[in-house]
Amino acid sequence: MSAKYSISADFIAEQNERLEAAINEDYDALKRALGRHGIDADVLVQKVMAFGVAIPTWGVGTGGTRFARFPGPGEPRNVVEKVDDCAVIQQLARSTPTISPHFPWDKVDDYAALREQAASHGLAFDAVNSNTFQDQPGQEHSYKFGSLSHTDARVRAQAIAHNVECIEIGRKLGSKALTVWIADGSNFAGQSNLTKALDRYIDAMREIVAALPADWRLFLEHKLYEPAFYSTVISDWGTSFAVAQELGPKAHCLVDLGHHAPNVNIEQVVARLVRFNKLAGFHFNDSKYGDDDLDSGSVEPFRLFLVFNELIDAERRKLEGFAPAYMIDQSHNVTDPIESLMQSAIELQRAYAQALIVDRAALEAAQEANDALGAHLELKRAFTTDVSPLLAVARMRAGGAIAPIAAYRASGYRARKASERPAVGGTSAGIV
Amino acid sequence: MSAKYSISADFIAEQNERLEAAINEDYDALKRALGRHGIDADVLVQKVMAFGVAIPTWGVGTGGTRFARFPGPGEPRNVVEKVDDCAVIQQLARSTPTISPHFPWDKVDDYAALREQAASHGLAFDAVNSNTFQDQPGQEHSYKFGSLSHTDARVRAQAIAHNVECIEIGRKLGSKALTVWIADGSNFAGQSNLTKALDRYIDAMREIVAALPADWRLFLEHKLYEPAFYSTVISDWGTSFAVAQELGPKAHCLVDLGHHAPNVNIEQVVARLVRFNKLAGFHFNDSKYGDDDLDSGSVEPFRLFLVFNELIDAERRKLEGFAPAYMIDQSHNVTDPIESLMQSAIELQRAYAQALIVDRAALEAAQEANDALGAHLELKRAFTTDVSPLLAVARMRAGGAIAPIAAYRASGYRARKASERPAVGGTSAGIV
Amino acid sequence: MSAKYSISADFIAEQNERLEAAINEDYDALKRALGRHGIDADVLVQKVMAFGVAIPTWGVGTGGTRFARFPGPGEPRNVVEKVDDCAVIQQLARSTPTISPHFPWDKVDDYAALREQAASHGLAFDAVNSNTFQDQPGQEHSYKFGSLSHTDARVRAQAIAHNVECIEIGRKLGSKALTVWIADGSNFAGQSNLTKALDRYIDAMREIVAALPADWRLFLEHKLYEPAFYSTVISDWGTSFAVAQELGPKAHCLVDLGHHAPNVNIEQVVARLVRFNKLAGFHFNDSKYGDDDLDSGSVEPFRLFLVFNELIDAERRKLEGFAPAYMIDQSHNVTDPIESLMQSAIELQRAYAQALIVDRAALEAAQEANDALGAHLELKRAFTTDVSPLLAVARMRAGGAIAPIAAYRASGYRARKASERPAVGGTSAGIV
Amino acid sequence: MSAKYSISADFIAEQNERLEAAINEDYDALKRALGRHGIDADVLVQKVMAFGVAIPTWGVGTGGTRFARFPGPGEPRNVVEKVDDCAVIQQLARSTPTISPHFPWDKVDDYAALREQAASHGLAFDAVNSNTFQDQPGQEHSYKFGSLSHTDARVRAQAIAHNVECIEIGRKLGSKALTVWIADGSNFAGQSNLTKALDRYIDAMREIVAALPADWRLFLEHKLYEPAFYSTVISDWGTSFAVAQELGPKAHCLVDLGHHAPNVNIEQVVARLVRFNKLAGFHFNDSKYGDDDLDSGSVEPFRLFLVFNELIDAERRKLEGFAPAYMIDQSHNVTDPIESLMQSAIELQRAYAQALIVDRAALEAAQEANDALGAHLELKRAFTTDVSPLLAVARMRAGGAIAPIAAYRASGYRARKASERPAVGGTSAGIV
Repeated sequence: MSAKYSISADFIAEQNERLEAAINEDYDALKRALGRHGIDADVLVQKVMAFGVAIPTWGVGTGGTRFARFPGPGEPRNVVEKVDDCAVIQQLARSTPTISPHFPWDKVDDYAALREQAASHGLAFDAVNSNTFQDQPGQEHSYKFGSLSHTDARVRAQAIAHNVECIEIGRKLGSKALTVWIADGSNFAGQSNLTKALDRYIDAMREIVAALPADWRLFLEHKLYEPAFYSTVISDWGTSFAVAQELGPKAHCLVDLGHHAPNVNIEQVVARLVRFNKLAGFHFNDSKYGDDDLDSGSVEPFRLFLVFNELIDAERRKLEGFAPAYMIDQSHNVTDPIESLMQSAIELQRAYAQALIVDRAALEAAQEANDALGAHLELKRAFTTDVSPLLAVARMRAGGAIAPIAAYRASGYRARKASERPAVGGTSAGIV
Repeated sequence: MSAKYSISADFIAEQNERLEAAINEDYDALKRALGRHGIDADVLVQKVMAFGVAIPTWGVGTGGTRFARFPGPGEPRNVVEKVDDCAVIQQLARSTPTISPHFPWDKVDDYAALREQAASHGLAFDAVNSNTFQDQPGQEHSYKFGSLSHTDARVRAQAIAHNVECIEIGRKLGSKALTVWIADGSNFAGQSNLTKALDRYIDAMREIVAALPADWRLFLEHKLYEPAFYSTVISDWGTSFAVAQELGPKAHCLVDLGHHAPNVNIEQVVARLVRFNKLAGFHFNDSKYGDDDLDSGSVEPFRLFLVFNELIDAERRKLEGFAPAYMIDQSHNVTDPIESLMQSAIELQRAYAQALIVDRAALEAAQEANDALGAHLELKRAFTTDVSPLLAVARMRAGGAIAPIAAYRASGYRARKASERPAVGGTSAGIV
Repeated sequence: MSAKYSISADFIAEQNERLEAAINEDYDALKRALGRHGIDADVLVQKVMAFGVAIPTWGVGTGGTRFARFPGPGEPRNVVEKVDDCAVIQQLARSTPTISPHFPWDKVDDYAALREQAASHGLAFDAVNSNTFQDQPGQEHSYKFGSLSHTDARVRAQAIAHNVECIEIGRKLGSKALTVWIADGSNFAGQSNLTKALDRYIDAMREIVAALPADWRLFLEHKLYEPAFYSTVISDWGTSFAVAQELGPKAHCLVDLGHHAPNVNIEQVVARLVRFNKLAGFHFNDSKYGDDDLDSGSVEPFRLFLVFNELIDAERRKLEGFAPAYMIDQSHNVTDPIESLMQSAIELQRAYAQALIVDRAALEAAQEANDALGAHLELKRAFTTDVSPLLAVARMRAGGAIAPIAAYRASGYRARKASERPAVGGTSAGIV
Repeated sequence: MSAKYSISADFIAEQNERLEAAINEDYDALKRALGRHGIDADVLVQKVMAFGVAIPTWGVGTGGTRFARFPGPGEPRNVVEKVDDCAVIQQLARSTPTISPHFPWDKVDDYAALREQAASHGLAFDAVNSNTFQDQPGQEHSYKFGSLSHTDARVRAQAIAHNVECIEIGRKLGSKALTVWIADGSNFAGQSNLTKALDRYIDAMREIVAALPADWRLFLEHKLYEPAFYSTVISDWGTSFAVAQELGPKAHCLVDLGHHAPNVNIEQVVARLVRFNKLAGFHFNDSKYGDDDLDSGSVEPFRLFLVFNELIDAERRKLEGFAPAYMIDQSHNVTDPIESLMQSAIELQRAYAQALIVDRAALEAAQEANDALGAHLELKRAFTTDVSPLLAVARMRAGGAIAPIAAYRASGYRARKASERPAVGGTSAGIV
């Protein structure tokens, strides 16, 4: 099967060889240090190896802003090429075993073949994403003034039908969840009746829920603003949660790290959704201003760690049905998307591994005693621990590269693709 | 009864006399202009006259910040004097018929006498506010590390007991609601287990709910931050709402206009709480940065109008049990509190009156047609209408002053109180 | 000359006729009310008639976000058609006598003809806008990693040459200023050396300044973020100001109301730029979250009033050379751009007129006496005054429409253009 | 001299003994790892040992909010006891060799004795802080409506005189700088003329500058809001910078990490002040919402690292006169201030050490090549390196404790002080 890989296992092994001695030395030192705290590094390596996050198909293309998009060389022109890129990411970094498709962008004639292509790389399909925030050529009704919450029943019906079609496709691909992000909202106070818009949305979503297979889940995604700049129908976790309750046990709330108001304590939002049994999972990225869609862990790595700290805390409480879905959702405007996605997956593993080495008993004792600084320093001790060698060893043991970006650069993959894939996307603005 | 008033009805009439001709002229012009839109100004005057908002007892004292408090002259030294000040406010501005007391600050031996004093001014008592954010002299357990969510069951029991005592006092005063704002939270990531703290809070609140009389309501107040600066147990409307659901039908969510993250669409939060049947009412004030507790309508008057626009929209849908409670909650650091409270009540009336003159049918038609600008301009037309003459006429007809602040200044009330009430509060920092 | 107008003066007169009696009645009432405060309404009408704001050529097209653009019917396909639309705006609302062009978007072969076309509508050209935030077909060097601050001297030279070309074109059009907004910045900490990038920018700008005609001014535009999401070279007014100082007396700082951090007191930024002699003028719009580019006065009208309050305050101090440039800079995503631009110009006039009716002597007296509430209420009195009749009379006296949007809708202009101008812009995302 | 210390050197040595083997093992591993990158760990240790940050005298007391202050046991009751606490901090953590006093809080009769007391602990006095944000008993004029910018010349004169007195005291204590933070601002639009208030401030500051000794510097501190909630006279770095320019070469701008608008890129503000030769130094703390005054590095440690990254970058450019002053400015509401201050100093050292291990040549090469991710990862590599062992070794070599907080707790210092120093501060709200 490795013949399918465009980067050979031998090449990776070769790349690793030069780095192995150093990484082993660093790992051994870390293992001894962790051992003094009663932590078995090898167990951690196992857990890190089992950690996986989905890559969205659109993430392997270059993103843009409303002002411009600056294409990179060798961008994938269709979902088949996107899967190829996802395969390289997984081959080198070994933490992204699934792909999250988006329709209609990823439409093909033969989904069985697509699923097989992915499987041949050891990849499976994760949650399906619908799109009712853009008009497609030939589309009967426009989403300019909304989709699932539109005032016109025909538009809502069209948006519902699209979501149902996404479920159908997802079944063929082996997905088990549908992610619904709607861009519906308003740009002017008064443009929309805030309550009626929500009611229309809820009614439409009920029809989508009705179309969900028994073993599927529905992921709602809230967002404070953009593309609507006065109000957004599902603008915050409170609305998302209240709606998920109305929609029943299949509906859960997704957390995108860039979709909150400034200063919001996101890890507490996560804790609340866990507490009230409605956490769907994550769209990982990082942000400084708004929905910046920057690389995970690049802006506030401590915040990312604190999110994982909540997840480990939840895991420890052995909540029934607790199984958050992880997906990266970033816009790679100035980097090679393959590099950004590999590094982002590693940053998620870093936060996960650091959260795992928190001494939960010590933390709890400090919390109970109101030793505020003591409790905080237990978290900081975990966060300042350099788990890089541990992550490298996990990759290595899984057949990946110690230094995925260096190996990728050495492989010449991008240059090869640049010649194989002539540019299609123009320099016009936007995310597609 | 007017003998009880420290400002005589004659004095008010005298003050009004000089302004009456002009205000009548302006009112007539407004009446004609509104008439052209099919609105009867006299009906509006009736509605404005029926509008009332509660004054918190602490609001008549000068507020401060953590850096300093600069006392004003003639500050009330106890609840009896606070009620006197509330009486003047109501006498002149005629829109604040109720008082919201706070314990232990307003503790007295004889609550029947206090109730009678208020009643003699035509005033009644509104929601009771408990205080578990400060330690009181002689208090057994400290709230330094929390109250209703404290890790120590004895501290929680003390906080519960205080709230139950507040209910008891409230019954004597004729109140029908208890407002619970807890300052509990943490200053450091890790200091508090976010989920356990909430669970302890919910358990404690259940005991308070159990102590509520049958016809009482419980108002939960959320706040993003301050005095805790990393996490707050009830930090956002989502948490407040989820908790209110767990606590049952008596629990509702209060909206303080300064307790949200930057940029949050507050009128939509109001709409959501209405939609999900959990809006308790408001703590009115205005803010530019955080919980600034500035005078209502002084920072973003259009936002205040949009909040009232939601309330009128809700009223129109004739929701069962929809009866939001209105209270002012401001910190008057650089103004005479009596002046600020009168003006704030007027600003609330202004927003209410403006929301009433929105042509709801026209608005709805524009919304249905996705005429975004047309719908918006219907709101803007109402907001830019100068309803000041209408508000003045409402005050006048109710026996109040056309120009309450001018009349108050002319009355010499403050100077008289300055000599009657020697300063007590020091220049130390803080809200008390 | 009115033969050139696509909407006839007769049509406007006819539309006005039905509204004139009511507007005159309202105006007379306002005039009497203002007269009581010693203000001559007719003088105000004159001042409002003299108020003008430039329309950017791109503003008459439908805008979009990075997610999508939903074209409207009859969009102008080139600068000639854009000028036609600007002419309609000016004809009806009479407050937008100038046009701000943007290159390369508005490139034509014959600028003299373009200037003449505009002049035939009574329109002139205002500040020229350069564009180094997009790559154009055939462009030698990409701006993906910056323009005037790029690490590569050849890219900087290309960006400088473009700006110099803009000056050349502007001379032909009769402009007297160049507006430079650069999108340069970085998406990752470390991507750019913050200091070196600024130094390169300053050096490049020096060359542009050197190319400015003697009677031209250079407008710098700062912006906190977007399209760069970690750092922006000219991110705040402080940087803009410090750079303008280095660039000398021709360089001034433009204020776009949506380019600031949350909660920033924008009117104080204006006051500071005035105080330090570096205010260039404004890009007017409104915003709730980020650079939302919403219609002026639609989100925080009181803030807009306070900006004009600072301008009137500055005018009163008779500062030498104080002549702020006014331009609208909005993205009309869900409205007819012509309607939004007319209404926005009116909202600017409203804020201007309200600022003019502040009793400056009374305000100053209250300020000197530290009568905080008294001073504030003087501003609020002006802001709550409904100057709509005054604005309508100003339009009417200038030959425009009492109700420009209603007249525009009645004219059928858009429908006619929809048939004359087949759609060109796709549904792809972005601002163009 | 160690006899003066309340914690003996022997006790520290004893505490260290148990930890030394492990720390040496970790340090050796780190040394080898850094060595592979061409970095000499021992040189880093030297640099860390030379790093010092001032402790503000008020920092050793328990802080509070406007709602409450919850005193801790054994709080220092006067500056002599504050110096004792500072001595313990320096003895154990070895990174806080200076003290920043505050007047009138730290007034004593004999400053020579105070200086000698400090010197006996190896401590010196850093920048003097004046206080015109509170009224003091017996003070002639109130600062309720401002100090250096007050409308009344007599109030300004009083505030100037206080600052001049601070300089006089500072000379006696060996200080070389005066820090001026004014709380002046307004709570209402209109309350203050924004420009006149600034002009009065500048005039007043000119008098203070005139009183500065030749070798002193003046530090201006800006702050977005609080205690004023509408406008603040020195609200942002732009104003601070423009004023510092007017005041001449002695005036510089201080950066407090909690005094900015949400989302502002603080490290870029630092870079700009460096670039324009006006960086005074820092008031270190951390914040999530506003001026939270939390412990340094507890909220966004990566941001703190990026600030130090700018300082190292500046150092490398060998700017003349570049000598930023470092002070901690925190409010310790729920922790033992001694513990928080030790830990905060360590966090600053951590950020400093991490910034030192950035490979500047590699970073520059990546920046020049627009390898955005490569450049970023060079910073991330440094930030994720666990330099804890290096910091411990630096403390140890300087005679301090490997684990300062553990040693402090073991020493029983606080319990001893609790019995020696009966509580004075009440539970009233505020910062003192």
